[in-house]
Amino acid sequence: MDLWKEMGLSNKRVLVVHHDDLGLLHAKNSAFFSLGYATGSIIVPTGWVSQLVDLKNSDLGVHLALTSELKYPRYRPLTGGASLRDSQGYMWQTVELAWENIKTGEAEAEMRAQIEAAFSLGFDVTHVDIHMGAALRPDLAEAYHRLALEYRLPALVPTIKSLSELDIKDPDMLSLISEFLEATPFPMFDIIETYNIPPGERLQWYKDTLGGLGPGAYMLIHHAAERTAESVALPDWRIREADFNDLGNDAVRRVLDEFHQVTFREIRDSLRRFI
Amino acid sequence: MDLWKEMGLSNKRVLVVHHDDLGLLHAKNSAFFSLGYATGSIIVPTGWVSQLVDLKNSDLGVHLALTSELKYPRYRPLTGGASLRDSQGYMWQTVELAWENIKTGEAEAEMRAQIEAAFSLGFDVTHVDIHMGAALRPDLAEAYHRLALEYRLPALVPTIKSLSELDIKDPDMLSLISEFLEATPFPMFDIIETYNIPPGERLQWYKDTLGGLGPGAYMLIHHAAERTAESVALPDWRIREADFNDLGNDAVRRVLDEFHQVTFREIRDSLRRFI
Repeated sequence: MDLWKEMGLSNKRVLVVHHDDLGLLHAKNSAFFSLGYATGSIIVPTGWVSQLVDLKNSDLGVHLALTSELKYPRYRPLTGGASLRDSQGYMWQTVELAWENIKTGEAEAEMRAQIEAAFSLGFDVTHVDIHMGAALRPDLAEAYHRLALEYRLPALVPTIKSLSELDIKDPDMLSLISEFLEATPFPMFDIIETYNIPPGERLQWYKDTLGGLGPGAYMLIHHAAERTAESVALPDWRIREADFNDLGNDAVRRVLDEFHQVTFREIRDSLRRFI
Repeated sequence: MDLWKEMGLSNKRVLVVHHDDLGLLHAKNSAFFSLGYATGSIIVPTGWVSQLVDLKNSDLGVHLALTSELKYPRYRPLTGGASLRDSQGYMWQTVELAWENIKTGEAEAEMRAQIEAAFSLGFDVTHVDIHMGAALRPDLAEAYHRLALEYRLPALVPTIKSLSELDIKDPDMLSLISEFLEATPFPMFDIIETYNIPPGERLQWYKDTLGGLGPGAYMLIHHAAERTAESVALPDWRIREADFNDLGNDAVRRVLDEFHQVTFREIRDSLRRFI
């Protein structure tokens, strides 16, 4: 099924501007409030998630997390699985450690608990996606996909093109994931990350590269945080600040406004006619 | 046993300046770094605890938590006990709800897990105390006391006088706790809280009331936080800011310097000659 076609969006330039890692910092939530883009996803085990409940017109999914990569702040699994935690009880700090250790059943229970907790908090969950791609191990990807179907939520699925740009070295794994993607009912996105674009080159990049994209469905993933005493405690705060500045910039907004911007709520509600 | 006597501190004016709720906010940790007083305690399930590991010369205990009172940030139990959590999976928002619901065994397992997690993180834990007095229910107080003995850590114990100033309405409960306190090997403190003193009256209060205290062991409990975008999201941020301003004030420091200031490390190490 091609959901984009069902939604009448084939051959359009479709865009979701997606704010990752909400709940992690007060400064990330502030950036979300201040920028005014509708869509993002919450890391349920973080401290500031409850600040995002009851927002009007928000379009928030669950950023399923199996990793807690920073030195601080850190967070722990919601469930008891021993394979999900490092020696200090936090989620693993790298995807590599997560993949070496995590048992499928425990990861599935954890992902389910994160979705359930978001509903308990009162979120009208619009989608699921994956923090740091930690669920791309084929068994975890299968569980992720199955959970999304069970909850009738769109799962963020990269196109094969976007997948091939990831640093997955095992060809068997890539092939398994590709097969799985071919069969998904979920709409696929070309993933656009600005993380590695130096702040000084970004305005030009938005105008030329983003503005020059042809028809397709794109997800612009960003990590905007306001520059505060709290956010500058993170080693990559300049990138978070650059995302915040970019997306508040009028010239960038004009580039984005040339796309057909969709919400995950629209996608979810269209998808529910079929699954 | 009178540990103060064993430490040669009878008839002195003994003071611990105690920073509660560390780990809860970046702005609280910053205040701790900036003020330079040695002693405080960490709420282990919060996000910013890991920022406090490896501090030189710190004197940090575990602020055993069974409640998560704010709307945000919030935190969850480390253990799985169903009686420890509200419908959203966080710790209870009030002591009343905690006392209505919490099962003794589950609370003891949770308190033990918080102490173990602090050791796993690398803290040289110097003491234990209780967030919001939630472990004053007699069965919980007994478990708290027993855990402190097992880990050979001083537990913060209020004097009968301080206890009578708390809002405990049940005379049987007060009598049970009083009996229990009479038998404790831990040094007792008169608890001094500035929470309800208006910021404008504080300097005078420090000079007159605190400065006028006679011999005894006092614990000045404070909640200092720097004034940042993050901290002002809390409803009582002005009190946290006032604590920060007070304790950085030279006139207040002069009042405090007239006391014999002890650390919990000194207390712990003395206590370990007896338990």
